[in-house]
Amino acid sequence: MHTIFSKVSTVRKKKVMIKLESDERLDHLLGKSLKIIQSTNVFSFSLDAVLLAHFTYLPLQPSGLIVDLCAGNGVIPLFLSKRTKAHILGVEIQERLFDMARRSVCYNHLAEQIQMIHGDLRGIAGTIGFERYDVVTCNPPYFENIPDATKNANEHFTIARHEVACCLEDVVKSASQLLKQGGKFSIVHRPNRLMDLLTLMRQYRLEPKRLQFVYPKMKKEANMILLEAIKDGKPGLKILPPLVIYQDDDTYTPELDRMLNGRE
Amino acid sequence: MHTIFSKVSTVRKKKVMIKLESDERLDHLLGKSLKIIQSTNVFSFSLDAVLLAHFTYLPLQPSGLIVDLCAGNGVIPLFLSKRTKAHILGVEIQERLFDMARRSVCYNHLAEQIQMIHGDLRGIAGTIGFERYDVVTCNPPYFENIPDATKNANEHFTIARHEVACCLEDVVKSASQLLKQGGKFSIVHRPNRLMDLLTLMRQYRLEPKRLQFVYPKMKKEANMILLEAIKDGKPGLKILPPLVIYQDDDTYTPELDRMLNGRE
Repeated sequence: MHTIFSKVSTVRKKKVMIKLESDERLDHLLGKSLKIIQSTNVFSFSLDAVLLAHFTYLPLQPSGLIVDLCAGNGVIPLFLSKRTKAHILGVEIQERLFDMARRSVCYNHLAEQIQMIHGDLRGIAGTIGFERYDVVTCNPPYFENIPDATKNANEHFTIARHEVACCLEDVVKSASQLLKQGGKFSIVHRPNRLMDLLTLMRQYRLEPKRLQFVYPKMKKEANMILLEAIKDGKPGLKILPPLVIYQDDDTYTPELDRMLNGRE
Repeated sequence: MHTIFSKVSTVRKKKVMIKLESDERLDHLLGKSLKIIQSTNVFSFSLDAVLLAHFTYLPLQPSGLIVDLCAGNGVIPLFLSKRTKAHILGVEIQERLFDMARRSVCYNHLAEQIQMIHGDLRGIAGTIGFERYDVVTCNPPYFENIPDATKNANEHFTIARHEVACCLEDVVKSASQLLKQGGKFSIVHRPNRLMDLLTLMRQYRLEPKRLQFVYPKMKKEANMILLEAIKDGKPGLKILPPLVIYQDDDTYTPELDRMLNGRE
């Protein structure tokens, strides 16, 4: 481990010391307003997290309560902290990722707003409270638990990407247990799991309300879905405008560019 | 009733005489290659039919068998006849619409390929055969059967637009009964019924495979869905590229323009 001293935060003007493992680096988030600890050996956030954070409805009041499941290195809580004063809990099962997230929270002077919890999301409501929360977010593992041969050799990636430590039903069930009536659950996933996701949501009293498809380019099939459900909500699903990532010349569309640089 | 003599068909070079009711007119379909009898008092086809016909997978061989449910004035069978040699049955419950469709088929010299049936789609497989068909299409009534006050006063519109003569479950059930294993069902509907549609399809052994969202403009919510399911198909839903109808200046996008003029 080596130790670095962060520069003075332009937001909080206070020095913090955090430790970085040898394979870790500090990356910018949303232009230069936040920094996050990442590691190519363990976990780096992807575009999916940016889109989910942007898509998510947020309570603005400090009394609001948010839980992020499968929080990884804390990227979603960090993003959300830019748009709300509500309190955010991040739940992560991998100790190394939990520790990275905790240090990033500290580095960004957000320890009062964001609390990381090292634990299993299955049954987490038993620990942090049933039906207390306004919003639950999740960027879950996308791939079903398949034979070992096709999984990532790296255990960190395996758990983050495959349904090893939790399956989609665990995620939906926990979200439902955590949410108040009328609370919102937002999730990002792949289109091939849309059917399962919609079915599970209805099974656990989460009514799908807003669905957005993400297309890599205008003429390409969607490769991501963003879905918001309301606990005990009335039926009535809206399909939001298409979200297109790249222009034909492989540069980001203006919409994505604004999102990635925190201008929207 | 007044009688008109059609011009010589450029395709078939044969004169046909058809009768038109006083409120009926002959409209062009797909550029000038087909004509269809319409009536503003009874039924005129909408963009939905064009999109569904274009979206639908078609068997090309003359041995192929297609059924169009809720066929209305025959617009879908007429469209499909331009892209396949397969035999097409159109089922329509309203006698007036059935009669319009039959006369349009005759006018276009398509009586050998398209056969209209006047009947109820509920239990229609008992009449025309279970598990015989390669493709079933449907542009159904979109609105649930609601109290009389909010329905169209015009009975023709009421039956065409509201689930009076059949509900969504009737449509899905009939489609499933008609299709061979591996046969394809394609339907156009509104996004707010997507959940019901997906649920009913799985209930009746129709696995959703291709889903396309239609957006009136790039920045607008989707207002139509096109969905294809395969009877006893394997799970795995693809979301096709977004289909956008209008450009920002309210003219059709190039894709729609090509579709409407039969150049694609």
